[in-house]
Amino acid sequence: MGKIILKETDTRAPKSFDKTETKEKLEKILLELDDLQNLLYAESKHSLLVVIQGMDASGKDGAIRNVFGKLNPQGVMVKSFKAPTAEELSQDFLWRIHAHAPAKGMIQIFNRSHYEDILVTRVHKWCDDKTAKKRMQAINDFEKLLMAHNNTSILKFYLHVSPEEQQERLQERIKDKTKQWKYNENDFAEAKLWDDYMKMYEDCFENCNDAPWTIVPADQNWYKEFIIASAVKDTLKNFNMQFPGLKK
Amino acid sequence: MGKIILKETDTRAPKSFDKTETKEKLEKILLELDDLQNLLYAESKHSLLVVIQGMDASGKDGAIRNVFGKLNPQGVMVKSFKAPTAEELSQDFLWRIHAHAPAKGMIQIFNRSHYEDILVTRVHKWCDDKTAKKRMQAINDFEKLLMAHNNTSILKFYLHVSPEEQQERLQERIKDKTKQWKYNENDFAEAKLWDDYMKMYEDCFENCNDAPWTIVPADQNWYKEFIIASAVKDTLKNFNMQFPGLKK
Repeated sequence: MGKIILKETDTRAPKSFDKTETKEKLEKILLELDDLQNLLYAESKHSLLVVIQGMDASGKDGAIRNVFGKLNPQGVMVKSFKAPTAEELSQDFLWRIHAHAPAKGMIQIFNRSHYEDILVTRVHKWCDDKTAKKRMQAINDFEKLLMAHNNTSILKFYLHVSPEEQQERLQERIKDKTKQWKYNENDFAEAKLWDDYMKMYEDCFENCNDAPWTIVPADQNWYKEFIIASAVKDTLKNFNMQFPGLKK
Repeated sequence: MGKIILKETDTRAPKSFDKTETKEKLEKILLELDDLQNLLYAESKHSLLVVIQGMDASGKDGAIRNVFGKLNPQGVMVKSFKAPTAEELSQDFLWRIHAHAPAKGMIQIFNRSHYEDILVTRVHKWCDDKTAKKRMQAINDFEKLLMAHNNTSILKFYLHVSPEEQQERLQERIKDKTKQWKYNENDFAEAKLWDDYMKMYEDCFENCNDAPWTIVPADQNWYKEFIIASAVKDTLKNFNMQFPGLKK
């Protein structure tokens, strides 16, 4: 795909999409997803890795809850990657990631991921350009390994919010008692680095593309969820899965 | 390196090596190794992966015991890779390997390794040539990751015994009560596939060479141990390590 300029990329649904209608479509897709995930688990030939990235308050947690929350938890695993521990730092940056690669039959969701090693780390200059370039190659090799050697499909979603929407949501985290637990005193400082983050994301989209990224307009949750659910459904459908017969 | 023809490669020490003299040298190297490993652990900037491969009864266990057995066990880990479990088979073939990559400061020994996925599997036609080729690429990418992203040095040793020496040792396993536990009823059947194994090893040496292999003449244990210990010592010395000062 051509170079993505995030500033010029919509954060809202196209005008043609009606909220109520889209929400109804989403409900149908979620029912279909439930059947597909059951088949994925039964057949156990394929696996699916869903990578979710986005700025603070871009709606990653909500997307996971609302798109995958109704599926059989036995077949769906979520791993949130936080700042690496000392043990993890004493290994290569993909070591802790590889441990959570989806087994056959499974859907594995990454809430943040190995991409942080070329995003937050670059914005804060913990990782220089030369290292970042080598990491991108390593990421491509790693994803190729999962795809070629464990029949894994990889879907990567960048939840694209506008800085205005982000500010609103961050303010809400302070005011809303049910959301205060999500507030981190660094959030506003990080938000000020917006342009740097966008630059690093754009560089990532351009260079880490063995499994390409989907830029999800994320100012409206209903549209964001519709886009993710649709992509997951289409991918699972393309596996052309069959229930296996009796074991011989 | 050029293509290795194992049939034309010595399995015994060069005539110039005297057994008693070499054993004395080995003892000195082992003392030096002890200091170097201590420094490796203290500095915690580098890590060392030692891959040991070889036919049944080529002396892998003995090499590990006699070269690494006296080092501080806190800094040396040994992982024996057996036939993969069902859980491991539901992942890509490097998943179970990556979990045992050496952390900084550590020496990790692999008794058998990811190379079995292009050796025993090819001999028994569980893995076709096309898949083997893709696996070799994945192995090179993977080793590059460890080297480039966790400062890991990789030493790969093939313990090269003659088929005659192997037969003698296998017979000994049946007769010697202290060695019977090592006997596996498949050993003699596997030994009959000698030429196939050599072909696959040669292919592996030719194509998996991001960190090149050392072919260790292994009919005589004293020479085998001397070669491995020397290579490990030289590698650790080249790290030019320093004891770190007080933490600030």
